[in-house]
Amino acid sequence: MKSDVILLGHGSGGKLSHQLLDDLIVPILSGIDQRDQNDAAVLAAQHGRLAFTTDSYVVDPIFFPGGNIGDLAIHGTVNDLAMAGATPVAISVGLIIEEGLAISELKKILESMRVAAGQADVTIVTGDTKVVPRGKADKLFINTSGIGVIEHDLEISGSNAQAGDKILINGTIGDHGMAVLACREGLELESAIVTDSAPLNGMVNELIEELGEQLHTLRDPTRGGVATTLKEIALQSQVEITLSETTLPINPSVNGACAILGLDPLFVANEGKLLAFVAEEAADQALAILQRHLHGEQAAIIGEVTATAPGKVRLKTAIGGLRAIEMLAGEHLPRIC
Amino acid sequence: MKSDVILLGHGSGGKLSHQLLDDLIVPILSGIDQRDQNDAAVLAAQHGRLAFTTDSYVVDPIFFPGGNIGDLAIHGTVNDLAMAGATPVAISVGLIIEEGLAISELKKILESMRVAAGQADVTIVTGDTKVVPRGKADKLFINTSGIGVIEHDLEISGSNAQAGDKILINGTIGDHGMAVLACREGLELESAIVTDSAPLNGMVNELIEELGEQLHTLRDPTRGGVATTLKEIALQSQVEITLSETTLPINPSVNGACAILGLDPLFVANEGKLLAFVAEEAADQALAILQRHLHGEQAAIIGEVTATAPGKVRLKTAIGGLRAIEMLAGEHLPRIC
Repeated sequence: MKSDVILLGHGSGGKLSHQLLDDLIVPILSGIDQRDQNDAAVLAAQHGRLAFTTDSYVVDPIFFPGGNIGDLAIHGTVNDLAMAGATPVAISVGLIIEEGLAISELKKILESMRVAAGQADVTIVTGDTKVVPRGKADKLFINTSGIGVIEHDLEISGSNAQAGDKILINGTIGDHGMAVLACREGLELESAIVTDSAPLNGMVNELIEELGEQLHTLRDPTRGGVATTLKEIALQSQVEITLSETTLPINPSVNGACAILGLDPLFVANEGKLLAFVAEEAADQALAILQRHLHGEQAAIIGEVTATAPGKVRLKTAIGGLRAIEMLAGEHLPRIC
Repeated sequence: MKSDVILLGHGSGGKLSHQLLDDLIVPILSGIDQRDQNDAAVLAAQHGRLAFTTDSYVVDPIFFPGGNIGDLAIHGTVNDLAMAGATPVAISVGLIIEEGLAISELKKILESMRVAAGQADVTIVTGDTKVVPRGKADKLFINTSGIGVIEHDLEISGSNAQAGDKILINGTIGDHGMAVLACREGLELESAIVTDSAPLNGMVNELIEELGEQLHTLRDPTRGGVATTLKEIALQSQVEITLSETTLPINPSVNGACAILGLDPLFVANEGKLLAFVAEEAADQALAILQRHLHGEQAAIIGEVTATAPGKVRLKTAIGGLRAIEMLAGEHLPRIC
């Protein structure tokens, strides 16, 4: 690359655009040969239903403890496919770059995307790059969309939570949101908070294979956190959810930072967590599956489903009270994903 | 909606986000019931290879003569699928909204997307909405990704252009880019230039059905225009392409505006045009197929393929000379798509 920074011409569609693609983006992300680059990628026929998802990432800052906007964008879309019970097959990458972004930063982010895709066993097959003038975006926005294949007949859905289900999470809550916030605000903490951003598709495959129809609902509690996600599921499935505060895994540093800032970790985003709703008799088996995984060592059973008050979520507090959980009305933490 | 403009809280994942989705975005774009909203859409199994594509739209201004960023985003992705010989099946929509965008403008754009999707016979099945603070984006960026199914065994590709092929286009060149530019710069023209943005999948289906293996390459000359697209194909297929200037359909108003601004219409973006490379003996039939379409009345045969100088594109000018066509080195027209 002849320039150290992204120029408007890199988005023109002309020679500079082709250089950026041929010398940097395509070799790092996919390695697809120039001869095979068309307006769309062609994939082999898939045997099974398809899952399709999209997410744009606008996180600020673009580098934060434990990750960056690139691996976050891969993990997020891989996880959305996994939550539908799908095996991720292919990912697209749409870059919107602000003029002036350092090529070295872009390179680092693209390399993280390739590594993250490799770890999740998914291929980046197609992409698009736009450049906008200085002040018309904020360094870099990334959209990733993904296709997965559903190789079973299970209905894993937010509308399939059932009375009697136990609710599991694969580890501590609030790490991602607090890692980004602490980094953005320059908070001085005793121990650094690191994002939990990680691919969960391997873990989900095992839940599906070993639990079968006893696995009812999967969802990753990203924006809005565990509280908002559970509220969504309570509404979709028309059930009541009761959470037990004492069982919620949480890092002391996250707890401390939340206390200082007046935030509730239940509403803080996660990027490497899933909530699994399983039939009561399968709960211990599900917990064992989660705990044997790298990203599940601190997994716990954190609540249960009843039919009492459809659409409600309540928290059994440490001192034995019951607190109703509602979605937040306003803005909580902007641009954490 | 209680507010007239988009607030940061509309991107929080909380109550305001859900209102924006439930009251505006989802009803207009897809009508998917709340119970069926999960992290990924689930599609029926498809019989055939899949095509997968993505594009982000950052056009400025977001409304321009004949269209807006919304229908443009649907047409562009539908056309990218069609150019791979695929029938579009499903589209995702990722919105990045700048705080302060008028809800009425967003509504108009979303409605255009729904209409455009309907015309192209494709369904919007999944989406994502992010809000960034004022000054961190420019009103609205839209990513659309698409899945198509390839129900035949043809290899329609930029690497499949063959010596002897005739090259067709379905109408006038440069309309989209000049429509956006004239609008953005406030050019006073005798007759208004209107975007050509349109879905081309119907036309492509007929080319495939009627021409079969005689159809070699399809591509839509968007960013970089006809010149850049032909150069890409010449390189991919390692052939020489000769264009005939006198046969290139062009609106007089586009020609005039280009002359005033010192632009070459060959490099100006189109959003409702395709270039088709077909075996010589099928050229007249291909022309007839294009011309019977609403978006193909001014279709023409504009060039041919030889094996002489692989990777080269040349223009036979009106006065009989030959001019080499190269990709533009720098920036031509930023943010026309």
